[in-house]
Parts: sequence; structure tokens; C-alpha cells
Amino acid sequence: MLELRSYVGGRWIAGTGAPQTLLNPTTEEPLAQASSEGIDLHAALQYARSSGGPALRALSFAERGAALKAIADAIQSEREALLDLGIANGGNTRSDAKFDVDGAIATLLSYSELAASMGQGKFLIDGEGIQLGRSARFHGQHIAVPRHGVAVHINAFNFPAWGFAEKAAVALLAGMPVLSKPATSSAMVAHRIMELITERKVLPEGALSFLVGSVRDLLSHLGGQDVLAFTGSGETGAQIRSSPNVIRHSVRVNVEADSLNAAVLGPEVEPRSDMYELFLKDVVRDMTQKAGQKCTAIRRVLVPQEWYSSVKQDLAELLGAIRIGDPKSEDVRMGPLASGAQLADVREGIERLGGKRAYSTTAHLPTRGFFHSPVLLEDASDAVHEREVFGPVATLLRYKDNPAEIVTRGAGGLVSSVYSDDQEFIERMVSALAPYHGRLFLGHPKVELSPGPGTVLPQLVHGGPGRAGGGEELGGPRGLAFYMQRVALEGSRPVIAKLLGK
Amino acid sequence: MLELRSYVGGRWIAGTGAPQTLLNPTTEEPLAQASSEGIDLHAALQYARSSGGPALRALSFAERGAALKAIADAIQSEREALLDLGIANGGNTRSDAKFDVDGAIATLLSYSELAASMGQGKFLIDGEGIQLGRSARFHGQHIAVPRHGVAVHINAFNFPAWGFAEKAAVALLAGMPVLSKPATSSAMVAHRIMELITERKVLPEGALSFLVGSVRDLLSHLGGQDVLAFTGSGETGAQIRSSPNVIRHSVRVNVEADSLNAAVLGPEVEPRSDMYELFLKDVVRDMTQKAGQKCTAIRRVLVPQEWYSSVKQDLAELLGAIRIGDPKSEDVRMGPLASGAQLADVREGIERLGGKRAYSTTAHLPTRGFFHSPVLLEDASDAVHEREVFGPVATLLRYKDNPAEIVTRGAGGLVSSVYSDDQEFIERMVSALAPYHGRLFLGHPKVELSPGPGTVLPQLVHGGPGRAGGGEELGGPRGLAFYMQRVALEGSRPVIAKLLGK
Repeated sequence: MLELRSYVGGRWIAGTGAPQTLLNPTTEEPLAQASSEGIDLHAALQYARSSGGPALRALSFAERGAALKAIADAIQSEREALLDLGIANGGNTRSDAKFDVDGAIATLLSYSELAASMGQGKFLIDGEGIQLGRSARFHGQHIAVPRHGVAVHINAFNFPAWGFAEKAAVALLAGMPVLSKPATSSAMVAHRIMELITERKVLPEGALSFLVGSVRDLLSHLGGQDVLAFTGSGETGAQIRSSPNVIRHSVRVNVEADSLNAAVLGPEVEPRSDMYELFLKDVVRDMTQKAGQKCTAIRRVLVPQEWYSSVKQDLAELLGAIRIGDPKSEDVRMGPLASGAQLADVREGIERLGGKRAYSTTAHLPTRGFFHSPVLLEDASDAVHEREVFGPVATLLRYKDNPAEIVTRGAGGLVSSVYSDDQEFIERMVSALAPYHGRLFLGHPKVELSPGPGTVLPQLVHGGPGRAGGGEELGGPRGLAFYMQRVALEGSRPVIAKLLGK
Repeated sequence: MLELRSYVGGRWIAGTGAPQTLLNPTTEEPLAQASSEGIDLHAALQYARSSGGPALRALSFAERGAALKAIADAIQSEREALLDLGIANGGNTRSDAKFDVDGAIATLLSYSELAASMGQGKFLIDGEGIQLGRSARFHGQHIAVPRHGVAVHINAFNFPAWGFAEKAAVALLAGMPVLSKPATSSAMVAHRIMELITERKVLPEGALSFLVGSVRDLLSHLGGQDVLAFTGSGETGAQIRSSPNVIRHSVRVNVEADSLNAAVLGPEVEPRSDMYELFLKDVVRDMTQKAGQKCTAIRRVLVPQEWYSSVKQDLAELLGAIRIGDPKSEDVRMGPLASGAQLADVREGIERLGGKRAYSTTAHLPTRGFFHSPVLLEDASDAVHEREVFGPVATLLRYKDNPAEIVTRGAGGLVSSVYSDDQEFIERMVSALAPYHGRLFLGHPKVELSPGPGTVLPQLVHGGPGRAGGGEELGGPRGLAFYMQRVALEGSRPVIAKLLGK
């Protein structure tokens, strides 16, 4: 069986001890094994800090951007093989796998373009110079410089390619070396990408390390110049945040966690209108794409009392037409969940939400593999505002006057969406929902090829307050701040001007 | 004896139970008592959220700025009485008390001016609009809106006026209601300021609450829209960060903690030069102003081997001329430490640093009160890079080639300073030190009225990575981000344009 290895200290190394087995979630057949036992994580971090850091900092933004382009090219060169791996190891349909792999390429290219616009500098000038005293000689200027540590990235199982790329692109552009750890169960795509990167030698030695298997005691080796970005469950996020070493050294932590993303249908939107159809389409896509395993997927579907039965009936009809099965088949629209653990978690979550099933099916579900029917719930318990069921599951909710009051019971999310053409309603929703979200998607049928709220674009921030973890990634240049130290230079204006090459 | 009260829920309320006694640290006489026992903190926060929040958000930036101006005016109107309170309750010399009170006024006025420039908006536009698709209709725009919670401010004992003002100014301007808690031992100045603010009714009800005494279970009532800014010891900062409720709700926390600020004399700076004299002056000021109780004070004095004896001798001479005693006396340059606990902590810290005393005195120290001699240490242990002694204590360190290597052993600080006219040396220091600091002060004798590295200016960020807590405050408009939620609006360009009033 294929043995996945880690790439640390400038070489590929296999773990020892009992490995974890990676399965094909469609067939439950084992595909590969991985272990991080025996790998010296302290040395791995130190190598990244001492080799990768200085090498990256010696490059200009434009040069770092060229490296990102080269990573995108490497992925592009084996796109078909990576899609096949996503289908096999992730239970992805081909469309799901494209969403992941093409998303990775697009994000890398977006940051590569941003880098080109940032030019030959190696650090950022932050704002205008500031006169501090009565005389112009006493001067201040903020700059942002790369931190001298390692950016540790702990990624979620659902986007092995994109998750790797969206974090790594930003850190590398900022000038920080990365140690990237994919979720083990679906690590084959990220592992192959890492092989491509090392084969092509597109990065300086130490700029990118890769760890498969358990994180073990990784967190206990982090220091005050390191940062950690985590995507996954709120529970694990809390464990990371409360880790004594992370607290002692004020390690910067970014968490993207649970999110009960809501979609609100405006009160004026009549059935069969273009806006109504867009709303249905986005809900169904978010429930079924990647079998609902997207942190941005719509979980709560808020519908005006008046159109409730209509929406329920239409969604049930659309969901009934989704073909579920082996994701290798071209006519299959939804594959299995990514692992047996996820399947168990989804089942437990549906129990927890309670209520009734407005739609679900047992017909045509394969008997092997981690398959689950799409489930549209209604009359659920209050747990619908607390428990993210990470699968093809959403809950219908009626509202009368104030949908925002219902949405904000989710206590902070990554994205919510509003489907309305009533400007007054949109304004009221944005005003009430903005403090609770990292992104608000305003659905409009006139936006062609709209990706819907579930797609994260590199130009916009991705993260959310409260339950969503309080993090923020991407957002074009905004994402760089996490990997840099802002520092105020204070002193004589000519001295500072010379320092900045002016 | 005076009983300090809290202002919560729109009224003044005294605590019950055993109070803490506030002393005059010069005479050890009791001045006042304070307790937070029996105060319903949950209700206090809820009142701020439900009354203060909406009222502040209904104001424009310019209107919030006018309120800050009114607070500054209120402080100015009783400046003399506040200085007297600082002298009595803080052990401040009149100059120390001015540093605190005038610093508060200046910071409020600085943010009031910034507010005027921000105009009639109620939220921030963050960057340019972004075309997201092939067609210009698919559009993105980031904005920043006030969070819907309370900003809890836990301040340090050393700057009761400035500490209150620098945090409150930024939060109120951002549109968040504040609950401010001064350190109990020196709370009289902040308490009087709060009385002035409530007497003059310069803020909407609920916009500013005030808690004296212990924080008790305050943290357990915070939610995902609340934020907490703390200034104090790293140990307490770690306790706050690891509080289960703070972690569970991803409460945003800003910590300003320990910092082993270094001052580096350039290798080319000869004794008796203007640069040299400036260096000595700044070191002596930081050791003695507020009896060294400034989080930005120079703790490590890095001197080239060649000038070591000269600097040691000159500093000892200057320190010997500092008159210590009752801070009410006009010729006294340094008063006592703020409390018996601080005195014990300083004594313990000096023991911990070890080494020898290049300067200290027992002459003329009053026998009552919490007085301590200025102490210049040399040949100290490695603890000098770990243990902040929060008093009139600094340590001399020799360097040969690479002072930055010594400075960064402090593992993250608020500010370090470089005194040199050698541009190549300055560049090398800035490049090596920037990632480890929130501010770098470049000393230059041609900057008239230079405040030295120990003064925090509202226009520049204040905070530092690693040991310093990883926080960031002030920095003009930069400080607002902590109190606001950034959200990406994504959708149809005309809809977003109308939302933003374009």
C-alpha cells in the first residue's frame, strides 16, 4: 500500500509506528497509510525558520509571486491525476474535485497577480508618514515585515488542494515559511501536490514543509514569532487556543470553525421569479456539492411564512432529482461523505437537530461506502443555531418580520446570504447581520455565473466572529497582515526616509 | 473614608462585602475603599450592549469624536485636582501626574481630530470596490462595522487617566460601548474622571460603564460580539486568554504585557556627543519617570564594549543626582512605587536578575512609603531577557558585533530604541528588530522635544509580539479594527453601490 511521507528538514521522511489508513470512501477500500511518529517536529520547525525564512525574506514580493505561479503551474500540469485522486480519496464527484483543485490554482494565481503589483519591495509600507511634533523632523511611519517564525497550517479534510493553497499562498507571499498539515483521511491530493512542488524545486529549501499524520506535540514547539492557522471544528480550535505554549508565547492563532450559514429569502420574492429560482439553486448546490462538506454551505434556510410550503415543495423536488452514487460515474451528482467518522457525525447531528424531514430518501443509496441522503429538516430544535451538521443537511425556518433575529442566534458565521430586490430590506439585513459575519452574499439573478455564497473568493475575506472562530483569511492583501509584524518607526524624518529608500 | 463606586446600568452603585483599601504610597495612609461585590455584572454588560451600543452606533464618527472632545474638556476642567489625586494615590511627582493626565487629554483630542476627518459616516469603507467576475456587475466591497457587544477594558495601575483614555477613545470612536475597570490600587484618578463624565452627561447612557474592585466573574459573561483589552502582567494576560468562556466564544482579546525594552547605543557614538547625551538622558528618564513603572521603559541598556565604562560611570552620576522623596515636593524627581505589592515585586525581581549593582543608593530614602532606589545592574543573569522588573531598574549589557541578537532574546517587546547616526547600522538594526517589536524609536539629537521611547503617541501603534502579549492598540485609525467587524459585501454592483450611498 502507498505510504505517504512527510517533507521536513529538506527531505522526504516516512513515519514509524502504527500508521493511519486512508480509505476510498465510496468503496471503503484502503488506499494509503500515513504516520508522523518518529519525526523530529522541533527540528522540522527550526529548519523552516533558519533556512526557509531568510531565503523567502531575501525575495521581493514579485519573486515570491513568481513562485506561487510556479506552484499553480505544477498543479495544473497534473490536474487530471489530482482530480482522480480527489474522486478516489475524497469521495468527490469530478465537479467537486474540480472545485477543490481549480480553486487552488485560481487562488495561487490571484495572489501571484497581487504579488506582481506589489513589485520589488520586501516589506510593506503601511499608510502615509506622520508628522509627530511641531517640527516636521519628528516623524512616524508604519511598516509591516515578515515574522521570523514558521506559519503552521492545519487544514480540514474537505479541501485538500484549495485548503493547502489558500493558506500557503498568503503566507509565502508575506515572506513566512510554511509547515502544512493536511487532514490525514484525505491527504493524498495534498501529498501529490507537495511531491510536484519538490520535484520542480519552485521554492527555496525550507520555505515549505509538509506533515502527514497526527500533529503530536507540534504546538509545544511554537514560539512568539510563529503563527498557526487552523481550519476545522470549533472544539479542536478551542484546544489549540488553550494550549499552554500557544498562550505563553502569544502565538498568533487564526481559527476557521463552525458556522451555521443562513440564506434569507426576501419577503417580496415570489415563487417562480428569477430571484426565487436562484435562491433554490444556491440552496440545493450548497446541500449537495461536496456532499454538503463545505464550511460555507447554507445550513439554515429562512423563508417568509407566506412562501414556506412552496419553497419546501420545490426544494424537495430538486433534491429528489440529485443522483447519488459512485462519484466516478458522470451522471452522479453527489458522492459519499469523506469518511466513516463524518458519516457517524452527520447521523448524530441530525438526531441532535430533531424536527421532521421535509426531504430525505433511502432509495438508490449504495450499500457500501459512507453515503448519506440529502436531508432537509423542518420544525427543528434550537440546536439548529448551535450544531453544524457537516454534510448534505439543511434546515427550513419560517420567519415573519425579522429574519435577522433568527440568523444572529447562530452567534457568528462565515457567510450568510440575502436574496431580495427590495433595497430597504437588503439595507436592514446588512446592517443587522454585518457584525456577525465575515461575508454577506447578496444574491441577484442578474449576476451571471454567480458562484453562490458557498464559494470563497481570494479577493474577499474568509472568516467570521464568535462561533466561526474569530478568524480572517484571504481578502487579497488583507490576509498578509496575519503573517507580518506591523511596527511603527519613530524618529528623524530624513533617517526614516533613507531607511525606506526615499 | 471615601468609598469608590462603580457606574453600571446607568447609575452609581457601591459594592458590598469586604472592600480593598487604597493607600497613599508615600505615607501608607489609607485614602479610599472599593469593592465590586454584589454588583450584577451580567446585567451591567447587558445594559451596555442594549442601551449604549445602539446609541453609539446611531452617532456618526464626527459626533462620537465630539463626545471624546467633551471628555477631554471635562478632564481639563479639573486638571489640577486630578494631578493632586495622582500625587496622593499614585505616588506620582507632579511631572509624573501630568504625563498621565495630559497624556489622556492629548490622546482624546487626537482621536477627536481623527473623528472629525472621518465625517458623517457610521461605519468604515475598507478599500476599493473589487470586480469579481468577467462582468463588472459581480462586485465586492469590504466594510467595517462596530461590533454589537461591549468593549471590556482592564487597565494597569500605572496610568489611571491615560490608560482609561487611550482605550476608551478608540472603542467609543469605533462605536462600541465600554466597560472600564481601573486597577484598584490607583483607581482614584479614573474614578474622578468617570464622575466628571457622568456629571456632564457627555455620552449616551450605557456608552461608558465603570467598575472598581475585582473583576470577579466578568469574563464568564462575555460573548462573541464582545472584546476585551487588557494591560498588565503576562501572567494575568495568559489567565484571561485561557478562560474557557473567552475561548468558547472566540472573544477578541488584546493583551499588552511584559516587555524588556532595549536601548542600543550605536558603535560609532562617542562619549560627549549629542547622540550620546541624548541616549543617557532617555535611559535616566525611563528609569526614574513614574519610578520606572512604564510598560515602555528601557530595561536593557546595550552599549558597545568600547564605551561601556564611560556609560556606566555617566549613568551612575546622573542617577545619583535624582532626588527621591515625597512627590509633593517640587524638587523631588522620583516618588515611591505605587503599592507595597509593587515594592515587593521589584525587590524579588532584582534578586532574580542577579549580577552586581552598577548604581544604587540607600541614602535619603524615606523610611515610610514604598520607596526604592534606582538600580542599574550589570553582569546580570540571563533572566534579564525574561523578567521585567517593573520599577526604577535597568541592566547594562555590553555588545561586540551584534546587539540585535541580544535584544531579540527578549522574545518580543513593545518598543526598542537605537541611538546612532550610522545609516548602515540603523538599517541593520531595523531589519533585525522590526519583527520583534510594535515600535522602534530611532533616537536623534536633532529631533527637538523628543519624548524618548517611553512615551506612547496616539498616532503610532502600541503593542508587541510574543512576550509583550501580541497586542496592538492606537496607531490612529489602525486601533479601530479591534472594535469592528470587517465584512465583505458580495453581489450586484448597483445594489452594493446603493447600500453605501453611492
